[in-house]
Amino acid sequence: MTVDPAAALEIALEEARAGLASGGIPIGAALLGPDGEVLGRGHNRRVQDDDPSVHGETAAFRDAGRQRDYRRTTMVTTLSPCWYCSGLIRQFGIGAVVIGESRTFTGGHGWLAEHGVRVTLLDDERCVRLMEEFIAARPELWNEDIGVAD
Amino acid sequence: MTVDPAAALEIALEEARAGLASGGIPIGAALLGPDGEVLGRGHNRRVQDDDPSVHGETAAFRDAGRQRDYRRTTMVTTLSPCWYCSGLIRQFGIGAVVIGESRTFTGGHGWLAEHGVRVTLLDDERCVRLMEEFIAARPELWNEDIGVAD
Repeated sequence: MTVDPAAALEIALEEARAGLASGGIPIGAALLGPDGEVLGRGHNRRVQDDDPSVHGETAAFRDAGRQRDYRRTTMVTTLSPCWYCSGLIRQFGIGAVVIGESRTFTGGHGWLAEHGVRVTLLDDERCVRLMEEFIAARPELWNEDIGVAD
Repeated sequence: MTVDPAAALEIALEEARAGLASGGIPIGAALLGPDGEVLGRGHNRRVQDDDPSVHGETAAFRDAGRQRDYRRTTMVTTLSPCWYCSGLIRQFGIGAVVIGESRTFTGGHGWLAEHGVRVTLLDDERCVRLMEEFIAARPELWNEDIGVAD
């Protein structure tokens, strides 16, 4: 694999920041090809589009359009993928995942590793801070996004 | 729960047939409220929208808009939910799933049951036939939809 995890994360982080700047939840992602080329990119748009189905990873997946084989692709995301996004990665056979951090939320990346997905966890301080500040400011919105009911 | 599984399936089947009639993959779903009221409904639109992210279940989830609590909702679908859709159900805490059939494809409904989701599997012949005919006619499209590469 010739995807540089650190370089890949910058793309996802750029998306997360764009999401925050437009009033949304700061999680970004990109789907990369075998040489690190961007096939699709996006960020959570629950708020902007009033659409609960648009997580960072599903936005990037959608933006990449219809692909015939995901095995040599990499999903890079600023945050550990939730079960919805982990399920996406598993079902479509995405070969690798690069994760900014899993301190503020841990989804299914351990499960993905068990099922043969190559997982790289970067523990990036900027990603942690972005989520910590967002969760402190908008706890109800964050809970809505991960399905935590009152 | 006052959701009648058989009645619920009719809605999903109607969606699946609408999907087939518009040239798509015949899988339909609906998200129902506690009394069986339709919160959202939809069908796979990979072909129609050229969008790989629109499975039946994700279409129904999206159509229901932003909900604050999914625990008393039921997802009804004509086919056993793939990992992507199973992940959606688990992450958002959807309380119950009604499934038309799992003979032509088995996704994550066993896993959902292990994690506390109430699963009803109907083994409906009409759902089986719809998928058998579709898979026989368009095997490459079906494989694309479930991430099976050549």
